[in-house]
Amino acid sequence: MYDIIIIGSGPGGYLAAERAGARGKKVLIIEKEHLGGVCLNRGCIPTKSLLNSSKLYKKALHSEQFGVHAENVSFNMEEAMAWKQEVVMHNRNGVAFLMKHNKVDVIEGEAFFKGGRKVQVDGKEYEGETIILATGSRPFILPIPGADSPHVKTSREVLELKELPEKVAVIGGGVIGLEFASFFSNLGIQTDIIEMMDEIVPFMDRDLAKVMRREMKAVNFNLSCKVEKIDGKKVFYTDKKGKENSIEADLILMSVGRRPNIENFEGAGLDIERGRIKVDDKMRTNLPGVYAIGDVTGKSLLAHSAYRMGEVAVNNICGGDDHMRYKAVPWAVYSHPEAAGVGMTESEAKEKGFNVKAASMQMRGNGRFFAENGKASGVCKVVVDADSDVILGVHMLGGMCSEIIAAGSTMIEAELRVSEVKEIIFPHPSVSEIIKDTLWAL
Amino acid sequence: MYDIIIIGSGPGGYLAAERAGARGKKVLIIEKEHLGGVCLNRGCIPTKSLLNSSKLYKKALHSEQFGVHAENVSFNMEEAMAWKQEVVMHNRNGVAFLMKHNKVDVIEGEAFFKGGRKVQVDGKEYEGETIILATGSRPFILPIPGADSPHVKTSREVLELKELPEKVAVIGGGVIGLEFASFFSNLGIQTDIIEMMDEIVPFMDRDLAKVMRREMKAVNFNLSCKVEKIDGKKVFYTDKKGKENSIEADLILMSVGRRPNIENFEGAGLDIERGRIKVDDKMRTNLPGVYAIGDVTGKSLLAHSAYRMGEVAVNNICGGDDHMRYKAVPWAVYSHPEAAGVGMTESEAKEKGFNVKAASMQMRGNGRFFAENGKASGVCKVVVDADSDVILGVHMLGGMCSEIIAAGSTMIEAELRVSEVKEIIFPHPSVSEIIKDTLWAL
Repeated sequence: MYDIIIIGSGPGGYLAAERAGARGKKVLIIEKEHLGGVCLNRGCIPTKSLLNSSKLYKKALHSEQFGVHAENVSFNMEEAMAWKQEVVMHNRNGVAFLMKHNKVDVIEGEAFFKGGRKVQVDGKEYEGETIILATGSRPFILPIPGADSPHVKTSREVLELKELPEKVAVIGGGVIGLEFASFFSNLGIQTDIIEMMDEIVPFMDRDLAKVMRREMKAVNFNLSCKVEKIDGKKVFYTDKKGKENSIEADLILMSVGRRPNIENFEGAGLDIERGRIKVDDKMRTNLPGVYAIGDVTGKSLLAHSAYRMGEVAVNNICGGDDHMRYKAVPWAVYSHPEAAGVGMTESEAKEKGFNVKAASMQMRGNGRFFAENGKASGVCKVVVDADSDVILGVHMLGGMCSEIIAAGSTMIEAELRVSEVKEIIFPHPSVSEIIKDTLWAL
Repeated sequence: MYDIIIIGSGPGGYLAAERAGARGKKVLIIEKEHLGGVCLNRGCIPTKSLLNSSKLYKKALHSEQFGVHAENVSFNMEEAMAWKQEVVMHNRNGVAFLMKHNKVDVIEGEAFFKGGRKVQVDGKEYEGETIILATGSRPFILPIPGADSPHVKTSREVLELKELPEKVAVIGGGVIGLEFASFFSNLGIQTDIIEMMDEIVPFMDRDLAKVMRREMKAVNFNLSCKVEKIDGKKVFYTDKKGKENSIEADLILMSVGRRPNIENFEGAGLDIERGRIKVDDKMRTNLPGVYAIGDVTGKSLLAHSAYRMGEVAVNNICGGDDHMRYKAVPWAVYSHPEAAGVGMTESEAKEKGFNVKAASMQMRGNGRFFAENGKASGVCKVVVDADSDVILGVHMLGGMCSEIIAAGSTMIEAELRVSEVKEIIFPHPSVSEIIKDTLWAL
């Protein structure tokens, strides 16, 4: 009998296990593939490793402006993949260590939960006081003719590529699509993005999305284009004028979203809505003692949201009173340039009825950004509630904004007002200063 | 008659002018050399440009691990210097634009202030309701024999070098010394640092300073060594055992600190203490209507401190009630690796009588840091008041910590408790997450 059984060892699952183990709970975590789940093994971590390699390649090629010259710059895919794998193994071993250190039992195998407090793995049954469902999600494949073409791959398979393709077509201009498009185009590979909506990355402020597309010069963006079918290497789509068109590529990346993994819970009596497990803000499902966290809830498909959901679930299981909030969840795209944001976009805030004040500032005016990026463009935009002066959103494009955005998360989580942030001292020269400068520009 | 006359257009001066001008004040700013002062023209900005070039060079040379190869990697000093100068001009023009945009009068010339409300420039007199002294500081030259050797240079002259030296000796292991040592050693130039104290960078947590020295492998650190004299290219010093020794270098950088520029205020009746203009927390001097901000106060010789002091002075001049606080002033060293911190170090907090809890975490355990830095070392350390659970200090070494530290400034300025920071969501994978992870390790 366990205190807690966790199904799935992605960020939500392993963090919940670590926290619960540290508090003395008897915990079992079940993983059907590799500790760390998709994020660590086939998502966030390996893509960041490959993106870093491709950025280094681009910098080695184009740093003449800064006085640095190099000849015969080359990219070795095998080595980049080997390093990626070393990074994955390093992190996976880190999770294994955390499990051991916190006395968490780990079982490899596919788990089924049919209700009650029992979980089946390979014919064996395990019982827990509470159960946390953290089975994550998998790539969604468009139900169109030819989607089974051998040239169609998801992020999962692309991370195992042996050789670089000659031409890439990315179906879907979300975070995953943009990151892979950035990876391939950084390496000089012709890359097309085909996106059904009229703009990339739905949660990005539209002002920034526009600049981002302009900055990703080497990528062709085909917006408002609906993919109809795939035939071998050809992707057929209808453009916004209704005209049929096609793009040929030897690698077609399908990145149109992800679907929660709920199949193994059939018959459990879980409340499911649009393929997602319904939870309240304490991460409780409709079944007593059964929690769900991470992608499987469909609430916020981000590793760090899963982390926090895991903490919330464990805190509540341990008798605390913790609640999941989504208003200060940051996001980042690790493309070149990077983009990141936290809180509401301007249009989102207006839709919600706030009396919105917003200001933007070009990063070119920031001393460090200009010194390190030359004539590249970047933007910072802040969204403020004019009535209370509280900051609602911080949005950035360019520089190391994936690292800077933590300051934005802190401001929004702490519900700081503009006048308070104006008194915060940012290091000079840093790109992070632009948050304060943008607030002054209001 | 001006509302405000500002002497010196460094970060403190130009920001004060901008803010006061934006509020409709009639402002005059006087600059004896270039708009932007030392920081923009001969300090923070140009060094960051050169450091970036040297980091790009190092990366182009050593990215095999990540699958990136390059041949005949070379560094062109002339081009790096030309880019540095373009960056300086871009920023200087930016300040000129800000002055114009906010209707600030600018005079080039050396200003003298002898008391009252009058300032003399080139024989002309200007009168102001209030005066802000923002004349900054200049490098201090050790009063030792041979300090006038042509091989001895300060940061000012090094930023105008035409050719790279073969060997460099840096006297003083503070921020400026470390940054130049990093620049030269990144380029493969043999570099020695000679520091009188037993550790580098006095305000850095000693645990981190140790790791930093280890990570700057290419630099020889000679600690507890007192420089006695210089003879041509030779620096003679006494080591900690009292043994005499010498280092030969064709470039000897004197970076042992900076002295406030107060010479032009003689006879004004200013309260001067140890060469610094005394001010209260409203940036007022002992003379009514006369304020002093930035390095000339000797309070915190950092550009961003000057910025904030400038704001505080202007807010008070405009009838507000603003106070300068120093507890959340970040600092950063833009060396390779970078270091940054904000708030108290562990030993500082203990000295001040806090009941201290501290925890450190190796960056190697951070997914993004490992992916991008391989086997390099980095550390995050947090210092907490065990009684109130309030965060007192955040200290980092490695990654883009100069950008991440803004999150630390925000936490300390907002007086967040550990429990509150634990609820902040950091993007995954980012190096910034390590702040939260370190707090969990407490």
